[in-house]
Amino acid sequence: MSQNASGRAIYSIRQLREGVWRQRDDSLAVEEPLEIRLGYTDPRQGRVHRSVSITMRTPGRDVDLALGFLYSESILKRLADVEQVEQNRPNVIRLELSERASFDPARLERHFYTTSSCGVCGKASLETLSLSGFDALPPLHQRFTLSSLCALPAQLRTRQPLFSATGGCHGVALFDLRGNIELVAEDVGRHNAMDKLIGALLQQNRLPLREHGILLSGRASFELLQKALSAGCPLVAAVGAPSSLAVELAQEFNIILLGFLGEGRCNVYHGHEALDFDG
Amino acid sequence: MSQNASGRAIYSIRQLREGVWRQRDDSLAVEEPLEIRLGYTDPRQGRVHRSVSITMRTPGRDVDLALGFLYSESILKRLADVEQVEQNRPNVIRLELSERASFDPARLERHFYTTSSCGVCGKASLETLSLSGFDALPPLHQRFTLSSLCALPAQLRTRQPLFSATGGCHGVALFDLRGNIELVAEDVGRHNAMDKLIGALLQQNRLPLREHGILLSGRASFELLQKALSAGCPLVAAVGAPSSLAVELAQEFNIILLGFLGEGRCNVYHGHEALDFDG
Repeated sequence: MSQNASGRAIYSIRQLREGVWRQRDDSLAVEEPLEIRLGYTDPRQGRVHRSVSITMRTPGRDVDLALGFLYSESILKRLADVEQVEQNRPNVIRLELSERASFDPARLERHFYTTSSCGVCGKASLETLSLSGFDALPPLHQRFTLSSLCALPAQLRTRQPLFSATGGCHGVALFDLRGNIELVAEDVGRHNAMDKLIGALLQQNRLPLREHGILLSGRASFELLQKALSAGCPLVAAVGAPSSLAVELAQEFNIILLGFLGEGRCNVYHGHEALDFDG
Repeated sequence: MSQNASGRAIYSIRQLREGVWRQRDDSLAVEEPLEIRLGYTDPRQGRVHRSVSITMRTPGRDVDLALGFLYSESILKRLADVEQVEQNRPNVIRLELSERASFDPARLERHFYTTSSCGVCGKASLETLSLSGFDALPPLHQRFTLSSLCALPAQLRTRQPLFSATGGCHGVALFDLRGNIELVAEDVGRHNAMDKLIGALLQQNRLPLREHGILLSGRASFELLQKALSAGCPLVAAVGAPSSLAVELAQEFNIILLGFLGEGRCNVYHGHEALDFDG
């Protein structure tokens, strides 16, 4: 195996195509753990350092990933609260929050999945899944044009070098009201791709989003919608299907949600009145 | 939204197909949290009850899911250690381990992602990712026939009612040496589908697997290979691509690993000498 900086690794494999076997080199998406360690000041315990996540990710843009993860999990509230970011070892990233950072250690528990109460219905679940701090998004002042949205998946495919090489990773893209893709993130993990995008936007001081949407190369799960909500994103469009809870979240927090998007095809799960169907 | 026992929920949506909009009912895969709570006896603390996981899953076969999760994470070592399983609320399942169950609470930490050391290279990562308890799988006595393997994805598609209805879930299947699918599990989460399959096999007293393979409807990640390893599975075949770390694990633990499987097509990432190419 040889690995390069592009998130790909080359393996020698045997490949069958149209009845013929051959030995060839194949590009795979690199998957490696990244541990995120956080330093913060606890009113009772003083300075605390703890590991808050180990995620299996494609190396590259690790700072974006760590910042996006902390922000989209509502652990980090603003970039100014981060005093230092260090990555002395390839698979460990350490962030130090400033002493003045307002920080609720209880937010970490959600990610550790140790919350002890879980609802008996989808509604109660939404509440216990840490959405209580969010408000529904305000109505859009301008509309997304549906015809340009339908062209997004084809546009994304031309901007996914890792997927083109490996066929084995997720892509997440930021696009504007006219359907122009402005930013793309790729990763073996769908949550990581979303976190990388949000982390980049945070550093560009572009959050909350007000007139941009996020495109997902795969399906739309609850957790991806939750991360989009944390970024204030008014529209999520997926090439694949949404889950039931993703639709529930979109309805409750007023996120326009599209699925099965492609040339001439689209399912609108929420928010059709905010789309321009003429384009 | 109306939800039924099949793991699907019906939503009213607007759908664009070939330039025509219509209002219709659409089936979505249900996604809801399942909390797994575990009771066990700790030598120092006595009887302990704690929440060990909240996973976003498709309801149904929750007992399989919980047992498969605990087994594939090496928390549960044998079915006989489970004294009681209770599901009084739809989204909470409680398992009580017997007092005599040998149980290492440190295994829980891996899932909580609180382990504090993470390697600087893939090799070190494999070691720290809790694979140290596993041996490489023994060589196969019989061979899988490649032509029958290539027919598996088409066979799986006819046995995925949830995917057929929703287009939005993962499938995992058990198949024998002749390429016959014996068991299928579906879920919005790929790990859950794998856990449901392993949990069912555990209850059927069929683990470790010796002459069966596992088919994945999507990509092959490190964690799916790890779960297959826990089930002693000698062959993993994926319709999609593997990640780099999935291939590393397959090489180290001698799991035959196929990717991009389909009629007349296959990539062999590890173990080609154990396949019968004549069939």
